[in-house]
Amino acid sequence: LPAVMVRLMSTASEANKEAAKGQGEAGKKEAAKGEGAKEVVINSYWGIEQSNKLVREDGTEWKWTCFRPWETYTADTSIDLTKHHEPKTMLDKIAYWTVKSLRFPTDIFFQRRYGCRAMMLETVAAVPGMVGGMLLHLRSLRRFEQSGGWIRTLLEEAENERMHLMTFMEVAQPRWYERALVLAVQVVFFNAYFLGYLVSPKLAHRVVGYLEEEAIHSYTEYLRDLESGKIANVTAPAIAIDYWRLPANATLKDVVTVVRADEAHHRDVNHFASDIHYQGMQLKESPAPIGYH
Amino acid sequence: LPAVMVRLMSTASEANKEAAKGQGEAGKKEAAKGEGAKEVVINSYWGIEQSNKLVREDGTEWKWTCFRPWETYTADTSIDLTKHHEPKTMLDKIAYWTVKSLRFPTDIFFQRRYGCRAMMLETVAAVPGMVGGMLLHLRSLRRFEQSGGWIRTLLEEAENERMHLMTFMEVAQPRWYERALVLAVQVVFFNAYFLGYLVSPKLAHRVVGYLEEEAIHSYTEYLRDLESGKIANVTAPAIAIDYWRLPANATLKDVVTVVRADEAHHRDVNHFASDIHYQGMQLKESPAPIGYH
Ligand SMILES: [Fe+2]
Ligand SMILES: [Fe+2]
Ligand SMILES: [Fe+2]
Ligand SMILES: [Fe+2]
Repeated sequence: LPAVMVRLMSTASEANKEAAKGQGEAGKKEAAKGEGAKEVVINSYWGIEQSNKLVREDGTEWKWTCFRPWETYTADTSIDLTKHHEPKTMLDKIAYWTVKSLRFPTDIFFQRRYGCRAMMLETVAAVPGMVGGMLLHLRSLRRFEQSGGWIRTLLEEAENERMHLMTFMEVAQPRWYERALVLAVQVVFFNAYFLGYLVSPKLAHRVVGYLEEEAIHSYTEYLRDLESGKIANVTAPAIAIDYWRLPANATLKDVVTVVRADEAHHRDVNHFASDIHYQGMQLKESPAPIGYH
Repeated sequence: LPAVMVRLMSTASEANKEAAKGQGEAGKKEAAKGEGAKEVVINSYWGIEQSNKLVREDGTEWKWTCFRPWETYTADTSIDLTKHHEPKTMLDKIAYWTVKSLRFPTDIFFQRRYGCRAMMLETVAAVPGMVGGMLLHLRSLRRFEQSGGWIRTLLEEAENERMHLMTFMEVAQPRWYERALVLAVQVVFFNAYFLGYLVSPKLAHRVVGYLEEEAIHSYTEYLRDLESGKIANVTAPAIAIDYWRLPANATLKDVVTVVRADEAHHRDVNHFASDIHYQGMQLKESPAPIGYH
């Protein structure tokens, strides 16, 4: 039997309207207090109600603005971490060895500082989904054709990777030369992926598939060091507990475990996307997966 | 009282998993039948379950892949359509007159063919949200900082505009020279908005605010011609009925009414975003509105 999705259809807009009412009243109170009055005036003119009155399942205030309660989820950690696409064609081998050769400098740079490594790599990992999603969006507009849900899927991947970064930011602090490096790497990688996706989406998705395989490997090593005590298994950042709906006493180990499951999903989605192109189809011809962030 | 958002927290992933189970079985059956076997093998290797087993509220099959049941909503048509940002500063005036001067060629080109006009303009309208969302996403990654929810808000605006296009595509068919024009306009506008947003997001959001004011005006004229019978008030496209949860007997007039309400929301969001910059703040300092598509 197909699953009944109706419970998801209880509209966000309706709940938002309720939130808006509450917020409107709060706004008036604030204006009365005289603080931030200018902001409130502008808010009320444009009828904009903000998200700071959202609440958690337990009724406590929702403290995040960078993601909302309905974007949270429970990671499927039962996913097979060992799946691998055997490179057979020339294009696959180019993708595979591109990723493998990028690992050497990364290993040398970070050694076993897996927290830093995770943080830095997530700044890169969030680029392909955004570039792919944007290019498919622009194509959809130009050609007056639908996307098969792939735009949303790729954009959600990008947002999920950004949430990984927001999480690891709480665990490791970037140093000044790492910040500088991120800028340089982003400019190069954004442009390379942009051009690569235009030339061969087949290759682009395959490269991401292999990058995700490497990510799974890195997070497995991170977990090993957390388990052996080489890295302190600190308390999970609050943002991670809310995003992945972890128990209140979750630790860094739990966070790395769910992040790794996310990467395995990205691996599946991207290898699958590449496979669709290998079959001579366009992504829109094969509906996008859902719930794979 | 703050609204209780808990009902939204019933996770999408869980429902997806249920959908996945159903789909998995369906996949096996299909493989047994021997048709599309190659696809099914790839699907099952990557564990990808697709969205074609989603159902509507009434239990009938969900036929769209370009949007999902939980992205549908009821438009708030009570929104004030007459709001206007009086251009005061030099920058406001530049934004205002840029938009006004773009109206002349548009009026001449389309005359009163409001269906075509709507379709063509939506291909442009879906660009700013994507560009703004992408640039904020890349900045968030580079600076290791949160977005205040603005990335999601701008991307949702872009997706909403794309749905407008998917709707009007059903009503008007683009001609070959219109298709060619879209390509040229997209290249120019994408690059102009990209650079504009980098130089002055304040100006960029103001321009979009004024574009939306013009869109409201155009849709009001479209409605007038639909009411007077100058344009046939045909049945609403099926995609529109599902996306905006319209009654089964909805007409083009209902569709234009909800689209116009969406544009009014975009107007509010973009003028508001520009106002935030005018106050010397960055968007992330003022949480993004929710539910404004
Ligand atoms: Fe990641
Ligand atoms: Fe990933
Ligand atoms: Fe629109
Ligand atoms: Fe709009």
